Amino acid sequence: MLAVEYDVTPDGQIELVAGAFSQDSGKSRQAAKIYGIDEDRAYADFRQMMERERGRPDAIDFVTIVTPNHLHLPVARAAMEHGFHVMSDKPAAVNLAEALELQSVVEATGLLYGLTHTYTGYPLVREARRIVASGALGQIRRALVVYSQGWLSEQVEATGQKQASWRSDPAKSGMGGAIGDIGVHAFNLLEYVSGRRIAEICPSLSSSLPMRLLDDDCNVLLKLDNGAPGVLSVSQIAAGDRNRLTLDLYGEKGGLHWEQEDPNQLHLNWLHRPSETLHAAADYLTPPTRAAYRLPVGHPEGLIEAFANIYRDFAAAVRARATEPAAAMSDLVPGIEAGVRGMAFVQRAVEASRAGAGWVKFTI
Amino acid sequence: MLAVEYDVTPDGQIELVAGAFSQDSGKSRQAAKIYGIDEDRAYADFRQMMERERGRPDAIDFVTIVTPNHLHLPVARAAMEHGFHVMSDKPAAVNLAEALELQSVVEATGLLYGLTHTYTGYPLVREARRIVASGALGQIRRALVVYSQGWLSEQVEATGQKQASWRSDPAKSGMGGAIGDIGVHAFNLLEYVSGRRIAEICPSLSSSLPMRLLDDDCNVLLKLDNGAPGVLSVSQIAAGDRNRLTLDLYGEKGGLHWEQEDPNQLHLNWLHRPSETLHAAADYLTPPTRAAYRLPVGHPEGLIEAFANIYRDFAAAVRARATEPAAAMSDLVPGIEAGVRGMAFVQRAVEASRAGAGWVKFTI
Amino acid sequence: MLAVEYDVTPDGQIELVAGAFSQDSGKSRQAAKIYGIDEDRAYADFRQMMERERGRPDAIDFVTIVTPNHLHLPVARAAMEHGFHVMSDKPAAVNLAEALELQSVVEATGLLYGLTHTYTGYPLVREARRIVASGALGQIRRALVVYSQGWLSEQVEATGQKQASWRSDPAKSGMGGAIGDIGVHAFNLLEYVSGRRIAEICPSLSSSLPMRLLDDDCNVLLKLDNGAPGVLSVSQIAAGDRNRLTLDLYGEKGGLHWEQEDPNQLHLNWLHRPSETLHAAADYLTPPTRAAYRLPVGHPEGLIEAFANIYRDFAAAVRARATEPAAAMSDLVPGIEAGVRGMAFVQRAVEASRAGAGWVKFTI
Amino acid sequence: MLAVEYDVTPDGQIELVAGAFSQDSGKSRQAAKIYGIDEDRAYADFRQMMERERGRPDAIDFVTIVTPNHLHLPVARAAMEHGFHVMSDKPAAVNLAEALELQSVVEATGLLYGLTHTYTGYPLVREARRIVASGALGQIRRALVVYSQGWLSEQVEATGQKQASWRSDPAKSGMGGAIGDIGVHAFNLLEYVSGRRIAEICPSLSSSLPMRLLDDDCNVLLKLDNGAPGVLSVSQIAAGDRNRLTLDLYGEKGGLHWEQEDPNQLHLNWLHRPSETLHAAADYLTPPTRAAYRLPVGHPEGLIEAFANIYRDFAAAVRARATEPAAAMSDLVPGIEAGVRGMAFVQRAVEASRAGAGWVKFTI
Repeated sequence: MLAVEYDVTPDGQIELVAGAFSQDSGKSRQAAKIYGIDEDRAYADFRQMMERERGRPDAIDFVTIVTPNHLHLPVARAAMEHGFHVMSDKPAAVNLAEALELQSVVEATGLLYGLTHTYTGYPLVREARRIVASGALGQIRRALVVYSQGWLSEQVEATGQKQASWRSDPAKSGMGGAIGDIGVHAFNLLEYVSGRRIAEICPSLSSSLPMRLLDDDCNVLLKLDNGAPGVLSVSQIAAGDRNRLTLDLYGEKGGLHWEQEDPNQLHLNWLHRPSETLHAAADYLTPPTRAAYRLPVGHPEGLIEAFANIYRDFAAAVRARATEPAAAMSDLVPGIEAGVRGMAFVQRAVEASRAGAGWVKFTI
Repeated sequence: MLAVEYDVTPDGQIELVAGAFSQDSGKSRQAAKIYGIDEDRAYADFRQMMERERGRPDAIDFVTIVTPNHLHLPVARAAMEHGFHVMSDKPAAVNLAEALELQSVVEATGLLYGLTHTYTGYPLVREARRIVASGALGQIRRALVVYSQGWLSEQVEATGQKQASWRSDPAKSGMGGAIGDIGVHAFNLLEYVSGRRIAEICPSLSSSLPMRLLDDDCNVLLKLDNGAPGVLSVSQIAAGDRNRLTLDLYGEKGGLHWEQEDPNQLHLNWLHRPSETLHAAADYLTPPTRAAYRLPVGHPEGLIEAFANIYRDFAAAVRARATEPAAAMSDLVPGIEAGVRGMAFVQRAVEASRAGAGWVKFTI
Repeated sequence: MLAVEYDVTPDGQIELVAGAFSQDSGKSRQAAKIYGIDEDRAYADFRQMMERERGRPDAIDFVTIVTPNHLHLPVARAAMEHGFHVMSDKPAAVNLAEALELQSVVEATGLLYGLTHTYTGYPLVREARRIVASGALGQIRRALVVYSQGWLSEQVEATGQKQASWRSDPAKSGMGGAIGDIGVHAFNLLEYVSGRRIAEICPSLSSSLPMRLLDDDCNVLLKLDNGAPGVLSVSQIAAGDRNRLTLDLYGEKGGLHWEQEDPNQLHLNWLHRPSETLHAAADYLTPPTRAAYRLPVGHPEGLIEAFANIYRDFAAAVRARATEPAAAMSDLVPGIEAGVRGMAFVQRAVEASRAGAGWVKFTI
Repeated sequence: MLAVEYDVTPDGQIELVAGAFSQDSGKSRQAAKIYGIDEDRAYADFRQMMERERGRPDAIDFVTIVTPNHLHLPVARAAMEHGFHVMSDKPAAVNLAEALELQSVVEATGLLYGLTHTYTGYPLVREARRIVASGALGQIRRALVVYSQGWLSEQVEATGQKQASWRSDPAKSGMGGAIGDIGVHAFNLLEYVSGRRIAEICPSLSSSLPMRLLDDDCNVLLKLDNGAPGVLSVSQIAAGDRNRLTLDLYGEKGGLHWEQEDPNQLHLNWLHRPSETLHAAADYLTPPTRAAYRLPVGHPEGLIEAFANIYRDFAAAVRARATEPAAAMSDLVPGIEAGVRGMAFVQRAVEASRAGAGWVKFTI
């Protein structure tokens, strides 16, 4: 759980200034240091944080909840009761009764409450929603949402794998296994993009491994509130699948297709004209969709991480030099030789091309 | 140009603590504030920065250069002459003579010099390099590297578009147009992954638009230092292309294929066995490659930006509330109703499935 | 309905020698002529065909049934009662009772009966079946088969479109609409590849257009006979879809994926090793799978049709010349100039390359 | 070499009625039998065929040449000198001099001469040509055509592999290796679709294996007759590649992309609007393009072969029964049980869905 105030992150809009990072106050202070937060705003208890922050002139503006599921309700309630807006990881709470209780708090306080259904943040998911709302597809007639992963194909909860452990423990994650962990994302994505509500369901949950307490596979027939049929199929024992979340939404005039593992493309297939593919950051997208992408078209967001990898290896060498004057840099980082060769390539190629020289030796 | 000290960014390894952000000292201080840097370490002149920082007990460890190309050499030289390591944007300098001069400085000072050839930071580019070095493909026999974009298909430099303007100005970007801007990346990627040097070239540069001073299309026949033939084909007038950088490298036993627009897959085709695809973050990759990916398998790095988009919209609402108590949140951000519906879905589905209830109404 | 004897087609195994092509004897004879069949073996009645053929020393060996569904049973029964083996288009009959009746005939006569579930004829579908049977995936745990088309998104049956008309008429196609037309293929494909039987179903059929008598969308939850869950989702109102038939089959160790629109690739994703793609005609496939592909690896079967298109246009010109001596050939067919240019390219390129000539004009 | 008269094949336009199938008259007659040709029109010598056919009232209309390259010219000349039109496999002849000689014959006789550059027969290659000719892309500015295969990565010619042997023998295939075998296709495809002529070339051919007499890798810089730059890159030592022929053609407004291994899609990327994909057989294509596809949209041509596989296995069982009354059918062919299960599926699903029955056992 973190308490954040808008300022810098991301895009200079939000700044992390306080937090209850651990119940161990030493650890909480340590985390604060890493995050560049004043130590006196590192709390060991979320209620204490709410209390003290409320008293400060520079108090936090909102609280973000990134704890295990069973703490979502108590933290959100405490925050709102102290006057703070709340941004929470999904699910809202561990069960429906708690979620309804939380809804009462939200309504009573009139504060802002947001839920990080991550996939709704993708530029092209938002564009898809706009396209459907515009009526371009006509009435929605059929929906197919699939979310499958393979990581629970083995009894990983028995190996002490942390992510698997709490997710497979009903006390910590609620009554749903795969349905609660990823099924909720699929459900939300379908309602979010289609602009329709699911009105009827025919679900079938199952567990494939012995000693697994919660469902690891969940298939649901459904009807939207306009009567359109659909299917939601979710699994965590889909061996070999990574994080396959796909949405196929069909209207009277065409179908819309999005895949999470290839998120910067949105496919539109039409009845009587060529299929179309929209690309994130392209100039024909609506302005809000373009604003939701921070890189030029054709540059996946991984480019930022690629930069980070080079910097990280460079920094490791810089740090090594502090104690070991002859420490070498990882050969994964291009250095001056690569720089010289690159410039030589430009210059030799430009000169040879201008001169019509044909083949030239490339030496440096 | 920024001066950074390792600490926090990224992965807590590097911290930005000083910088010459603008020649206008007011603007430089303003930038410093945004980056959370002490105002007295915001300089208006890079030489001043080097001078003053050298005198501080908590001096910067290295300088990162993110200026237009013609400043790369002077800043790098100044930094190194003051004892600082350097990380520079590519190209190393505006021409070969400058690059060689820089190489002398690097060799004379013995300091670290790194070049952010971004694509070398991708986990699977590094894995590709390891695979080639391991000999799995056998001797390299053929290489095809293509890098094409379409954004210079129109005379955008005449419209005052900033990126186009300096890139198309020989004084600022050097003698190469497309070859200098993106050809260098293609050249570097080929040498980086193949582990071979280009030994001979037969280049042909051209410009397709009237009044364009530098090349916008560049095709090069080449030979590697082991005699293997290859082609480097680069263009910025490939209308409709976004940022298509692809590498096809063939050895005696198989071929290796990587595409920048789909960077988290690496394809290996073999002579006598099924084709293979490697996925970033997968557990069968070598540890360094796994460590270069910060998300679980199947989750593109865009997920981080998707989160950021939700937070940004939420923060905008929080800020709006400060002046407008009834300000509503963007309906793009899932709220408590989405939270309640999600929990209702889990609970109803689990209950109906356990009860073998078949179809149930889904109301909340 | 055709009566065929093995000899020439395909692969020289089968020859078409007799047929009841139409109830109009003139039309039947006309068809016979087109197919190169003796006129006296062109019948106007299938029973007459069975009767007469039985009496011939060179009688047909088997009958192939390519009629509308309601004739499948009567023709098959007549054929078998006259001692002929039968190959039938699917479905076997218009309803279960008829199918069971046919089964009795098959069992009573001991003759061969085959059903052209076309997709089972694809080389990689057969390879997939072998892979599953080999145990390489371990026990099957989950299945998802989707078959969606968009051509019934509009009320095409009202326009007199022939394919739509009989398929949407319960009297001619039976009680199933989409489920009978394509759902049966999906059902068969799943059982064929998995080697498992479907043991339990929870179906939901619907029709999206007013005045449509049969289902056009059909979603079924299912359980295989080993308890594994699955989904079969079929639609003919999936606007924009062409003929999207996909099978995802998951076992304990990995998943197998096949798509009808890209039939010459079979994808295998594994828990702890790189994904694999198998290609039709590749030398690592089992011999029967290789024998089921008639072209070299990487050459889609469309190549044969591409040849046919060139020949057809050429033949049209030949025919035109018979009456119009100056008739020109379609410029779609490459002619002697293309031939000369091609040879010039080879010769000039070989010579220039050998001579190290660099750029040469290419004239002819 | 075959002599064909239009009638039946394909599409009932052409019929094979005579041929010089072998220099051994017994073998030639044997072949004739397989093809269903009168024995007296099976010749052992192509000149004899021309002579005799010329005298028949039902003489052939045209000759198709499918011999090794060195016979292309003599057969074509003989045919034309006897008054027959000619359809020839590419290349037109073994070298430029021969091709020019052939051109003289074609011009002198005024007969039709066609060259089966197969890839020009693909529906979407023809559509691509029309799109370029329509000016939709604007002036062509850049071209990249790649054709790579991996089958000569090993010294297969030394193993007696027939295809490799004559292709690698200068006496039989001419002076070009990879360039003559597949480079000519790439060259032709580029000129065919672009509607432009290649005007200047800068070629580089090489051979990667010792003792290989002809080139196995060929890269060419080129300029079109409007000055646009391009690259042709061809290889038969691209290990792991199957039959990768791709064309990227860029105009002022967009780019056009086609891949032989996925021939039924044509991709168009535009400067300022979504990318488009055209699908073979779609109703928005021009009529000639639609007519060049014999199956419904979304059904690859492999479907015909899939049918053939089922029929072949069925025919094998029929034939086995002739000698072995208890011979079983391959279990790869769906039989009556599959038929019954399919009908049971339809009936049970329709009934259960209508009854709102939820889960039902599926037994038969």
